Amino acid sequence: MSNLSDCPKEECGVLGISTAGKDAARIGFFGLYALQHRGQEAAGIAVSDGRAIRVHKSQGLVSQVFDNEKLAPLVGSLGIGHTRYSTTGSNSDRNVQPYVVETMHGPMAVAHNGNLVNADQLRSKLLERGAGLQSSSDSEVLALMLAAAEGASWEERLASVMPQWQGAFSLVVLCAGKVIATRDPWGFRPLSMGRLASGGHVVASETGALQTVGCDNIREIDPGEIVVLSGQLARSHQGMKPSSTQARCTFEHIYFSRPDAFWDSMSIHQVRQRLGAELAREHPVEADIVMPVPDSSMPAAIGYAAESRITYTEGFVKNRYIGRTFIEPTDELRRQGVALKFNTLPENLFGKRVVMVDDSIVRGTTAGPLVRLLRDAGAAEVHVRVTCPPIAHPCFFGVDMGTHDELIAHQLGVPEIANHIGADSLGYLSLEQMMVAIGREDGYCNACFTGSYPVPVQLSLMSSKQRFDGVLG
Amino acid sequence: MSNLSDCPKEECGVLGISTAGKDAARIGFFGLYALQHRGQEAAGIAVSDGRAIRVHKSQGLVSQVFDNEKLAPLVGSLGIGHTRYSTTGSNSDRNVQPYVVETMHGPMAVAHNGNLVNADQLRSKLLERGAGLQSSSDSEVLALMLAAAEGASWEERLASVMPQWQGAFSLVVLCAGKVIATRDPWGFRPLSMGRLASGGHVVASETGALQTVGCDNIREIDPGEIVVLSGQLARSHQGMKPSSTQARCTFEHIYFSRPDAFWDSMSIHQVRQRLGAELAREHPVEADIVMPVPDSSMPAAIGYAAESRITYTEGFVKNRYIGRTFIEPTDELRRQGVALKFNTLPENLFGKRVVMVDDSIVRGTTAGPLVRLLRDAGAAEVHVRVTCPPIAHPCFFGVDMGTHDELIAHQLGVPEIANHIGADSLGYLSLEQMMVAIGREDGYCNACFTGSYPVPVQLSLMSSKQRFDGVLG
Amino acid sequence: MSNLSDCPKEECGVLGISTAGKDAARIGFFGLYALQHRGQEAAGIAVSDGRAIRVHKSQGLVSQVFDNEKLAPLVGSLGIGHTRYSTTGSNSDRNVQPYVVETMHGPMAVAHNGNLVNADQLRSKLLERGAGLQSSSDSEVLALMLAAAEGASWEERLASVMPQWQGAFSLVVLCAGKVIATRDPWGFRPLSMGRLASGGHVVASETGALQTVGCDNIREIDPGEIVVLSGQLARSHQGMKPSSTQARCTFEHIYFSRPDAFWDSMSIHQVRQRLGAELAREHPVEADIVMPVPDSSMPAAIGYAAESRITYTEGFVKNRYIGRTFIEPTDELRRQGVALKFNTLPENLFGKRVVMVDDSIVRGTTAGPLVRLLRDAGAAEVHVRVTCPPIAHPCFFGVDMGTHDELIAHQLGVPEIANHIGADSLGYLSLEQMMVAIGREDGYCNACFTGSYPVPVQLSLMSSKQRFDGVLG
Amino acid sequence: MSNLSDCPKEECGVLGISTAGKDAARIGFFGLYALQHRGQEAAGIAVSDGRAIRVHKSQGLVSQVFDNEKLAPLVGSLGIGHTRYSTTGSNSDRNVQPYVVETMHGPMAVAHNGNLVNADQLRSKLLERGAGLQSSSDSEVLALMLAAAEGASWEERLASVMPQWQGAFSLVVLCAGKVIATRDPWGFRPLSMGRLASGGHVVASETGALQTVGCDNIREIDPGEIVVLSGQLARSHQGMKPSSTQARCTFEHIYFSRPDAFWDSMSIHQVRQRLGAELAREHPVEADIVMPVPDSSMPAAIGYAAESRITYTEGFVKNRYIGRTFIEPTDELRRQGVALKFNTLPENLFGKRVVMVDDSIVRGTTAGPLVRLLRDAGAAEVHVRVTCPPIAHPCFFGVDMGTHDELIAHQLGVPEIANHIGADSLGYLSLEQMMVAIGREDGYCNACFTGSYPVPVQLSLMSSKQRFDGVLG
Repeated sequence: MSNLSDCPKEECGVLGISTAGKDAARIGFFGLYALQHRGQEAAGIAVSDGRAIRVHKSQGLVSQVFDNEKLAPLVGSLGIGHTRYSTTGSNSDRNVQPYVVETMHGPMAVAHNGNLVNADQLRSKLLERGAGLQSSSDSEVLALMLAAAEGASWEERLASVMPQWQGAFSLVVLCAGKVIATRDPWGFRPLSMGRLASGGHVVASETGALQTVGCDNIREIDPGEIVVLSGQLARSHQGMKPSSTQARCTFEHIYFSRPDAFWDSMSIHQVRQRLGAELAREHPVEADIVMPVPDSSMPAAIGYAAESRITYTEGFVKNRYIGRTFIEPTDELRRQGVALKFNTLPENLFGKRVVMVDDSIVRGTTAGPLVRLLRDAGAAEVHVRVTCPPIAHPCFFGVDMGTHDELIAHQLGVPEIANHIGADSLGYLSLEQMMVAIGREDGYCNACFTGSYPVPVQLSLMSSKQRFDGVLG
Repeated sequence: MSNLSDCPKEECGVLGISTAGKDAARIGFFGLYALQHRGQEAAGIAVSDGRAIRVHKSQGLVSQVFDNEKLAPLVGSLGIGHTRYSTTGSNSDRNVQPYVVETMHGPMAVAHNGNLVNADQLRSKLLERGAGLQSSSDSEVLALMLAAAEGASWEERLASVMPQWQGAFSLVVLCAGKVIATRDPWGFRPLSMGRLASGGHVVASETGALQTVGCDNIREIDPGEIVVLSGQLARSHQGMKPSSTQARCTFEHIYFSRPDAFWDSMSIHQVRQRLGAELAREHPVEADIVMPVPDSSMPAAIGYAAESRITYTEGFVKNRYIGRTFIEPTDELRRQGVALKFNTLPENLFGKRVVMVDDSIVRGTTAGPLVRLLRDAGAAEVHVRVTCPPIAHPCFFGVDMGTHDELIAHQLGVPEIANHIGADSLGYLSLEQMMVAIGREDGYCNACFTGSYPVPVQLSLMSSKQRFDGVLG
Repeated sequence: MSNLSDCPKEECGVLGISTAGKDAARIGFFGLYALQHRGQEAAGIAVSDGRAIRVHKSQGLVSQVFDNEKLAPLVGSLGIGHTRYSTTGSNSDRNVQPYVVETMHGPMAVAHNGNLVNADQLRSKLLERGAGLQSSSDSEVLALMLAAAEGASWEERLASVMPQWQGAFSLVVLCAGKVIATRDPWGFRPLSMGRLASGGHVVASETGALQTVGCDNIREIDPGEIVVLSGQLARSHQGMKPSSTQARCTFEHIYFSRPDAFWDSMSIHQVRQRLGAELAREHPVEADIVMPVPDSSMPAAIGYAAESRITYTEGFVKNRYIGRTFIEPTDELRRQGVALKFNTLPENLFGKRVVMVDDSIVRGTTAGPLVRLLRDAGAAEVHVRVTCPPIAHPCFFGVDMGTHDELIAHQLGVPEIANHIGADSLGYLSLEQMMVAIGREDGYCNACFTGSYPVPVQLSLMSSKQRFDGVLG
Repeated sequence: MSNLSDCPKEECGVLGISTAGKDAARIGFFGLYALQHRGQEAAGIAVSDGRAIRVHKSQGLVSQVFDNEKLAPLVGSLGIGHTRYSTTGSNSDRNVQPYVVETMHGPMAVAHNGNLVNADQLRSKLLERGAGLQSSSDSEVLALMLAAAEGASWEERLASVMPQWQGAFSLVVLCAGKVIATRDPWGFRPLSMGRLASGGHVVASETGALQTVGCDNIREIDPGEIVVLSGQLARSHQGMKPSSTQARCTFEHIYFSRPDAFWDSMSIHQVRQRLGAELAREHPVEADIVMPVPDSSMPAAIGYAAESRITYTEGFVKNRYIGRTFIEPTDELRRQGVALKFNTLPENLFGKRVVMVDDSIVRGTTAGPLVRLLRDAGAAEVHVRVTCPPIAHPCFFGVDMGTHDELIAHQLGVPEIANHIGADSLGYLSLEQMMVAIGREDGYCNACFTGSYPVPVQLSLMSSKQRFDGVLG
């Protein structure tokens, strides 16, 4: 369902489980279910019973990929899981994670979230060594480098190859007897761990997934930290020193993470309310109602309304049945007003001066039609407020925001964008006030706003989006 | 996904289309997509090209039942559609609508929303006449009675048999050359029509579906009114006098209809905001935040917050990926805290006195766990406010609320329910104030609150839920 | 897989089971598996546990339609089954048998093999009575007439309506407490019964299916006989007097039945060997080898070889993987020699004078390419011998042979056909010698050879193949 | 469908295509369709358009794995294909061929038929080198060794690693610009090539597949020969000297190959007829009829009958619908006589002295029940004749005959086997006369009869069947 869809795409949610019992796969299922928003294209779980690793993975939603029959053979107390966003059209079965290999040290599985900026060089090195690569996924590169690394244990091998990996990776590794988890030294992508009441531990991309599976004692895994889960124990050491440049992804606050997640020890829902409140202070406007673009902008709109003392209500109704449909309104139908995703609430809007709060504008394809819908429903004025600065630069650390050419803020200034989307006024939250709302002065990657990448990005990467997928259809 | 699910189930959404072009099926698809919430078990579309009727229907969500390949053969300018809720477990392929038959007057298809209280007698009469019934659906009864009715046209035949149908029916009929739509004389279930900008008309259970397919000039079809769509024309006459007892379903306001629908000429979203406001007046409480049980209670919580001047925010995050999963947390997992559907936002709740606004309490299986989740997240007090009176009686007019024994308010008084769900206080909106919020003194069916059924219900029906399904598995 | 396919199509295999145990469905599965050649398009089984009737049916091969999960709910000691041939392209789900209805006398299911020549009048009568017909299948007509018939029991109702049914029907009826089976009074289509060693009885279109499920005491059901199976008992009486014109289908001997079947108390395999022997006597030829068109002509070729003392061997290899593929060689590929179904054995053929024995020539589209394949493989001469007379007239009693226009022998004489297919000589077995091989002077329907139909056929039927299917897509 | 199934299992059919046009995939489909009998568990096709390699592969029959939609994206003039037999139960998606990898020399795909006896050592070497293996298939080993091999071209790299591969391999390799095919220097498994009339060449495991796709100029690829197909050209050179021990698989003559194949320049159908004739000379018997166990023993039975002058006819009817069904007769049903695969023809058998010709007896589980079926049908005597010597030793070169313990001739002598299966007499063709029928004195692997393996087999392999599959489920 792509019409009126202008969201950045995150590539993954990851999960690692070590339980006292045998039901790692079942806990994995519920954890992935809570990470579904981080990747709706594919899902997989690999488990170990201490000897063998078994995996089930496939394209589709978590609830489509797994049923009781599929979970039944996945017996074991250790497991890792993955949800994936992938580009459509390509036969990407081979890229679905977790990625499982037999190595000289026994079976191993890998799943990760993020993107290496030096993957091309790493692939080339592997190929030159005589390897055969079966996918275009960074996971395979990580796995094959681990398989060939120096070290007496998987955690030692991990520590020995990590320094070669440039970019974002929140990684989980499953071997016969343990689960290992780590984050890149910059800390781009989130990864947290918690303790299961019934014994054992879980690591997950978002704390909400840990809450879903019943964890307490939840804490973030540090950049460069290596956590080893085995039985009921969790050991930890610093595999690499954290980079002097810390680079958490601001967009986890703005859009990606579910509002029940904590990121940098802060409640996402509260950060978003504060982003709304700062936005109200920085871009106030005389209006009758404040309304969100559902669903992700709700907390920010609540915050804007509370700060501005303007009435909060809803102006859009969103169709909740977001199963993928391949049927789109024809242009003819669209001209006739057929809209698949949003309807308006004219009684709430008629004659009103409206503040429409949106979390971000990426390609600029959604905001215009939404403003028009509000006007068609009788809104007297439409003031668009955005909870982050203009996005003018692509992300190379795991978020598919599109290329420079596709980013509207790379092409147009704010007044032109306001004009383009037909808003009476348009206010982006400034970088400074955004960081005030977040409550930090630095430690974040704001490259998509500033173009200042915390890790050097090769020019070749900046000009080409697709690396390898053409070669192996 | 049934855990923490305590909603009444509606059985259908219906749709009828007469276009100037040939794409009735495509318009039907988008209309059904917007009626998906009225039935997620099955969907179907039948179209006529003026000579033959073609149908595609199947179990599953609208987006699963239809794709371009399935729509392609459904060529025609006339069509009807249906979304269905059905009881699980039974092989109910035969009951999926629209129901298509060849008759002495040519081919015909029927789809309806509602429930006849005298269906058993009507079935018996048909069987005694020598008919063979292939389903347990009222639709077949309606169709076979129409096929055998007196009258020179389908609308005449409809008018001649309607008086025999006791109960709720919003009905669409497709024959070779037209679409006919009607509502029972009590007006239990909604049915509206609108004009397509491109020519032709659409009727639908909810006005939101009409908005989705680009209609204007939207109006309700009157109880007993018969509307005939043919080409670009819509003719109408009163097929039966409206009953002196008008009996609109109050629950369309409370829960069923999407907030973008109009029912009885009122915006559902606005009615729900007023229900919240009335609730705040009738059951005020000292509190720090007002929060909804998402998603249906959001407008009421907004209304409660605005009226009470208590801060509105969110306390639950709901998993949006409501594709049906057959995997439920085991009791063991549930004890460990695994929750599939709702997570809490502790930072918003910790130490707070919370008003949790819910639209209804049916079996009482959800409210208790939700209150507990809020307390576990640190809420200091939890005050539950419900936007309708206690539901103490089953519905026989198309809503599956369960039997007397299953309804908690049939078993327990309000204080006992408050105790049962662990709330610090529990306030149900009174019947009187509910009607004040709706803005009407009568004309509604409130039988589920009062036990006073607007059409006499046989005792047999009241004691047995399942009629026929056992006989034909 | 339609290339090189020139076979008449039979429409059905039927089955009825009454066991001492509870596994009617499982016996039904194995019985249908042995009747698969009588219909590869759809299959179904309905069972009764004495109270309710449950059914599973679907398009596909028996092994695709059923698995353990599908069989599990079909609990009961009574059952009927069906395999179906249907015209491709139409969405014929509605026509898949068994056909199940609720009637005033309780639930009932029907499956049949054959074709009524007065179905149109019977349909019209039903429609005029006010019935609604949901399929274009004769089964529904049979079922609805039974439902409305006079009589104190299903066998009485069957006896009372049977006289109205003109044409071929081998019918099985399932009601709550018994299975009833009958054949039309002309005896067009086969139907036999046997006794299960474990108690109970089975009826089936072919005796081979009875052998497959372990029956002994196998006998044919007589034309007009009604057999009632209930528990371990089988009662029988003559429901109608057999017609003075007996009209067994000769083509069951020639082609349809599996060689392990008995028809008219004769082994099909032996009849086919005798047909080959008579053919050798009537159309002798100097040759080096006799070879069949596999698989159905093997017994006849064995008979021809034995009688003529010419060496029997094989000249074609047939691809056994007859799962339906929708991929056909393109014309380009066909020109290049791509052949999907038959390869030749050049070493057996090179320089040889070949007798190719075929069971029948219908449209004449296969014989020509086969003769060419043999010549390409080096055959010096190709003499085609056919085990029945030229087919010049369509069948209206359950066999889809095509229309007059499609039958090559309606268009061309034998010498022209020989020329058309490129044979050095062509010999059809004469009607007289065919009957000598069968061992009967009369009692058979030879209308496809003679045009003399044993039951009058309406002109309308003769000119139109498709009756109703256009109306209900 | 395993009841009454006692056949050795071959593991693969392979195919390589280089066309003048763009339809390598379509030709591949028809070729695989003709190789279906060499592997019914999975199928796959990889194509190259000169730059990228695209693959589609899946478990299932060729006609299930491919349809027009699946073939459409496989655009290119070069391709390889594979049909596979695999052990059931294991999730063997990863083992389905062709196997595709990216290498330092570009993309490459591999498919093969056969089995390496030193695969374990080769795998260990790869793992020690730091490789990660993703399957338990020899194909991956072959591919990864090729990827890392020395040489300026793929054919040079192939020639450089071939000497390390001990055992049977008929191999096809696809790279961006060519198809390479080779056979092991012992010549265990067949591989032939032919010229397409439309330009280009095809290689295939059996010549019948070449005939199916319209090839002429068909010849066998020599042991150790490397053939390179590119555009319309085929180049060839000897990659390795043929082994002094030539070891063609005798079982291709006896059972595996379709009768339309040529093996060692001989028509399989003719060899089988001669095997039958030799059998008649070596083990004559007074009898009334000779009949095959269908389908593979037909030519041998024809040969036996012609030599012995005993009448040839059929005694069994085999169910042709060999789609896999997972429903087996229960023991109870089997006791009642339910038989899924074979029915008898009692009229042909009653009172007769029968010679039943079978191609081989492996585990001995089929012959006994078949003899019993013939006796139950009234056969006066049953003489079993087998067209090869007793199989007393497992195969390690690509045929799954079972372990020593499973082979009946490893456990029992001929008289005991005769007694075990209930035959009046049992005659196996001697090794000497078998080779006479084949027309060669040596050059064949007869290890399954003699235990004398042409390539040394490790003891570990002889004791364990499963190598690796337990480790990666």
